[in-house]
Amino acid sequence: MLQAAQNAPLLAGLEAGGTNFNCVVARDPHRILASARFSTLKPQHTLTEVLAFFRDASETLGPLGTMGIASFGPVDNNPASPDYGRILNTPKFDWVQVHLLDWFREKLGIPVRLDTDVNGAALAEQRLGAARGIDNFIYVTVGTGIGAGIVMGGQLINGFTHTEIGHMRMSRDGERDPFAGCCPFHGDCLEGLACGPALEQRWQRPGTELPPSHPAWELQADYLAQMCANLTYCYAPERIIIGGGVMQNAFLFPLVRERVQQLLNGYGPAPALAHPDSYIVPPALGGVSGQLGALLLAQQQLHGNSPAA
Amino acid sequence: MLQAAQNAPLLAGLEAGGTNFNCVVARDPHRILASARFSTLKPQHTLTEVLAFFRDASETLGPLGTMGIASFGPVDNNPASPDYGRILNTPKFDWVQVHLLDWFREKLGIPVRLDTDVNGAALAEQRLGAARGIDNFIYVTVGTGIGAGIVMGGQLINGFTHTEIGHMRMSRDGERDPFAGCCPFHGDCLEGLACGPALEQRWQRPGTELPPSHPAWELQADYLAQMCANLTYCYAPERIIIGGGVMQNAFLFPLVRERVQQLLNGYGPAPALAHPDSYIVPPALGGVSGQLGALLLAQQQLHGNSPAA
Repeated sequence: MLQAAQNAPLLAGLEAGGTNFNCVVARDPHRILASARFSTLKPQHTLTEVLAFFRDASETLGPLGTMGIASFGPVDNNPASPDYGRILNTPKFDWVQVHLLDWFREKLGIPVRLDTDVNGAALAEQRLGAARGIDNFIYVTVGTGIGAGIVMGGQLINGFTHTEIGHMRMSRDGERDPFAGCCPFHGDCLEGLACGPALEQRWQRPGTELPPSHPAWELQADYLAQMCANLTYCYAPERIIIGGGVMQNAFLFPLVRERVQQLLNGYGPAPALAHPDSYIVPPALGGVSGQLGALLLAQQQLHGNSPAA
Repeated sequence: MLQAAQNAPLLAGLEAGGTNFNCVVARDPHRILASARFSTLKPQHTLTEVLAFFRDASETLGPLGTMGIASFGPVDNNPASPDYGRILNTPKFDWVQVHLLDWFREKLGIPVRLDTDVNGAALAEQRLGAARGIDNFIYVTVGTGIGAGIVMGGQLINGFTHTEIGHMRMSRDGERDPFAGCCPFHGDCLEGLACGPALEQRWQRPGTELPPSHPAWELQADYLAQMCANLTYCYAPERIIIGGGVMQNAFLFPLVRERVQQLLNGYGPAPALAHPDSYIVPPALGGVSGQLGALLLAQQQLHGNSPAA
């Protein structure tokens, strides 16, 4: 096994996040051989730094076989599309139309596979984390934005393009929560009401400064519970994993679980009703699921697996 | 082709609906050889009538090869489950725990495949109707209840069990719509606000008596548009087909399409934004999609295809 890993080709993994670009090199995801982190600035600047890292790693460790990218979105993640690997109309305006996949494929001269950051993280939690042995689950991140990687029957689900669950409609009681939401497209959609920046704008200070007893958290749990109820009815998953910066506040989990049970009111699939504590859980891989997912994408590219596998 | 069809085994199809049980017999779904409709009354009564029909048909036309059932829910539609084919906690209390699949398998002595009525209808629209050539679409019924069959990458999507999109949360403005909803579990979820009985209870008369200019329809379109927006963000489908009794009011389609565009506000997958008229459409098969779907399930059982294929 170790022998096989030593002879396995080197994999380049890039988690292209809205805040940082995390780079890793490994022969297998359990053993990272080199890593680096760069702030997400202007594309030309950040991409040049990332490229230099991978070129250096290649000189030290040997030639890279394939690359995987787990990218912030929206991004074209459909391998059959002519724009596969291109960033679409993100609010990070400098990055709109940047063709991440082509850029690295040309500069590094190796095959590249790309998917969303949340699909990458879902893949990592499935293979190495909180969804091992589970065929139907959802990985949600609640941070700067809100998005999900959805696995049904063991396969990542994509439609015409990737999902954007952060933009589902919410029920908002204007008296309880007069904050109109911060989504530039929809105002008070899920992301507009419950992402990290929404929390900060509503309460006029960062979430890290809000104590667990602050009413902010009951409200936050309510929106996240609405999300979980909708995901429960729309997918019937066996587990919902919620990660991202906002969920570092671990006291949110019992609040969300309790409110979800109230919303479901006894009606729903068995995993949601019978085992609330193992139904809504934090990620097992914490902050490294994205970069591990990128390595798994590189591995899929190497072995020619279906992008959805 | 005709020769092949003449020699093909006879298929029994049963659409087990909340109002009627529709029975069909055919060698191929394009040519129904016998059909009958029975009201959904007490299980023993209705099932006996259905059984008699299929036994008579078998005597006249020849032995039945396989049976497909497209059933109202909730029902266990997971072939790997010990309860596969059993009706679960439906508000139609007489039918709770009725094991539809086992009953017909034992009485008719043939293999039986069962799925939800909406999964059956989605299958029929995919093979014979409004979703031919489309890999990612959703079939929704808006009638006595609200439910969906979801096809992604050409495959029906099921989680731990089938989805129940009718129970997603809605944004309801209490001043505009003081009706608290009729869902026995959730009150004002999608189904509680927008199914046929909700329409009737809110306005104190059947939908058929409400003229197109009545404010009922703007409100109805708003809830259905919220549903479509949520489905758009949760699945990124290429098409949403909406059928069921309530959608017989064809003037709803332009109202829903217009409101969906307002809710998406320019943000979403290309099929939703660029082609609203072909994005949200009525079924091509009208009221027969369920029974055709049942025949397709029987055909899958015959050929040993995956239940999700």
